Amino acid sequence: MKNRLPLKGVTILEFSQYLSGPSAGLRLADFGARVIKIERPETGDAGRKLAIKNMWAGSDSLLFNTINRNKESAVADLKNEDDRLFIQALIKKADVITHNFRPGVMEKYGLGYNEVKKINASIIYASISGYGNTGPWKNLPGQDLLLQAVSGLAYTTGNHSDAPVPFGLSIGDYMAGSHLAQGILAALIRRHKTKQPALIEVSLLESILDFQFELLTTFYANGIQPKRSEISNGNPLLAPPYGIYKTKDGYIAIAMTNLDVLAHALDCDAILLYEQEHVFIQRDAIKKLLADHLATHITTYWLEKLHRQKIWAIQVLNWKQLRAEEAYKGLKTEQHVELNNGGSFITTRCPVKINGEYLFSAAKAPALGEHNQKIKQEINSTIKKIKSIA
Amino acid sequence: MKNRLPLKGVTILEFSQYLSGPSAGLRLADFGARVIKIERPETGDAGRKLAIKNMWAGSDSLLFNTINRNKESAVADLKNEDDRLFIQALIKKADVITHNFRPGVMEKYGLGYNEVKKINASIIYASISGYGNTGPWKNLPGQDLLLQAVSGLAYTTGNHSDAPVPFGLSIGDYMAGSHLAQGILAALIRRHKTKQPALIEVSLLESILDFQFELLTTFYANGIQPKRSEISNGNPLLAPPYGIYKTKDGYIAIAMTNLDVLAHALDCDAILLYEQEHVFIQRDAIKKLLADHLATHITTYWLEKLHRQKIWAIQVLNWKQLRAEEAYKGLKTEQHVELNNGGSFITTRCPVKINGEYLFSAAKAPALGEHNQKIKQEINSTIKKIKSIA
Repeated sequence: MKNRLPLKGVTILEFSQYLSGPSAGLRLADFGARVIKIERPETGDAGRKLAIKNMWAGSDSLLFNTINRNKESAVADLKNEDDRLFIQALIKKADVITHNFRPGVMEKYGLGYNEVKKINASIIYASISGYGNTGPWKNLPGQDLLLQAVSGLAYTTGNHSDAPVPFGLSIGDYMAGSHLAQGILAALIRRHKTKQPALIEVSLLESILDFQFELLTTFYANGIQPKRSEISNGNPLLAPPYGIYKTKDGYIAIAMTNLDVLAHALDCDAILLYEQEHVFIQRDAIKKLLADHLATHITTYWLEKLHRQKIWAIQVLNWKQLRAEEAYKGLKTEQHVELNNGGSFITTRCPVKINGEYLFSAAKAPALGEHNQKIKQEINSTIKKIKSIA
Repeated sequence: MKNRLPLKGVTILEFSQYLSGPSAGLRLADFGARVIKIERPETGDAGRKLAIKNMWAGSDSLLFNTINRNKESAVADLKNEDDRLFIQALIKKADVITHNFRPGVMEKYGLGYNEVKKINASIIYASISGYGNTGPWKNLPGQDLLLQAVSGLAYTTGNHSDAPVPFGLSIGDYMAGSHLAQGILAALIRRHKTKQPALIEVSLLESILDFQFELLTTFYANGIQPKRSEISNGNPLLAPPYGIYKTKDGYIAIAMTNLDVLAHALDCDAILLYEQEHVFIQRDAIKKLLADHLATHITTYWLEKLHRQKIWAIQVLNWKQLRAEEAYKGLKTEQHVELNNGGSFITTRCPVKINGEYLFSAAKAPALGEHNQKIKQEINSTIKKIKSIA
């Protein structure tokens, strides 16, 4: 491997659980960091027991294995004096701490930023909350669907007569994890120059708002809550044809193009009655026309016509169809990861390619407390030092 | 300001246009980097003329101003010898280059990674493609809706009888920009230790696949293309009630909870006929029941009952409603940004908080070529040096 992974030598203590915080840890682990999950006795990261579709991989959920591959696990009871010493010693040797507890929880255990800074004066302390650490919503449950609901996001998707449509995956968790990773990486760069510690804070709500920055800026400017189009909504602010349409044998996506060009490409004279100038106002009528027209032939028939005019259009695929494509296989986005029970499972790899190499890692998710002994041996002298001072 | 911004002293040359690459530049600019857009004469970044809802801010679109605030602009004609010298000198002094052209375009101008490395041996060269730089799809248009269509994403959202539903915003562009920023930051850390250059590559397709990593891993394990629920789909793999429901006066989101607890909280005995064990298989019937029940009273009536049982539920808000909330105002996510015509507009700020401070920046987007003179003066001696060697 040509690559020295960029975060080689960086140690992260992950007090985080479920998806948001651990997804940041996963990215940083793939970048070469050593990520040690700090888990409570007996149950550990609550994500271990959160299965989707009742899918398990040994005693932990497949979901947990997916999010926590390539990490270590140390169990600590924060109410036990010996374990607290253990954690203090770990903090002394660590570069980064992450957590996604509700505001006040880490402080209750004496592990707030100010306390941790006293143990390690150059620590990078990174936290994810649901709604920010202050204000009237700070104690609400930071659950992804709820954040989609209050952030206005659900009004961007689906058609006008639909109820607000949530994204079918955990966008807030994923975004906040992604932003946390950015903040941690930036803080590591800053520390190289200043030796200073840093507090990095993100929230699911602020992350989902940032994700909507284009649409929100338009809303701030004109004050108009955008209306989703009546059919084939692809973006509430974009003119037709932008959207997905049914054909005789499947679905087709068509992005932005000039109406005249589109009408000629598709032999759809009815569209010519509309003027490009009024295209946004008349989008529902135009889209309806287009939908009726596209339903009369199969996808490849239309794609051939659209591509001949260089119009941006493509077939809609589900995962089975995608997985059969040569283009997908060539990207090598799948990788095998080990399991504690000796088996393995397939998951996606890190999406970032460095120096022409994909960052694969077959390293498994840890069993609860799997690395306690190893880690204790490593930091034994630090534990003794703390004890002798106390 | 307590903060020394983490990327102070880092210079980024942004050959990128539209959203994906420039959104990475925006984040890094907010982190303190100096981002110089390198634009073609006369038209510049094609995003300057891409307006949504025909909204402009001076001669550039509001969209361009949103994505490119806090940057500088230098115009260069890559076919002109003097301009090529100018770019070479800039590359010598820069830390990072980004671009999101189709594969081969930068190489055509002698600005591929291998050429640029000869000019600056420690450059970080970061690119975004649509579908990866090799394979049968590499020359397809890397447009967001098309990537949503082929990546299977559109089959996660909406209800079973709907056509595939695209997200109403540019998720692929945004994600790829976010991953590119992560890769650049990681490479900067690596360079501190190794002095080595780095090539960072991401694609919209790989980024959207990574975003789906939880659901895809489940699909790889069981081979089953998940079915969206017939009503109130919130995630195709999650059991009821997970979803958004209509009430007498609005909409309510309810996340995961035990059926018994839910039935008692809502006085909905009919739900008790279903067993927790079979809840996923019978989700459509349960959701239908629940939908009929919730339609009979207003949102606050239900929320009071649900919250009394600590069930994760919340009202669904649009942007107008959200903006009126104290919790929203307290987060101070809005900021005023200058315009070239003397006015200003409101946009969102960086979602990452550092050392308790929000990263605000009122700095405007540059006029096309606004900083040519200033930058040329700065690098004049470098230009002369290159000339004398040549």
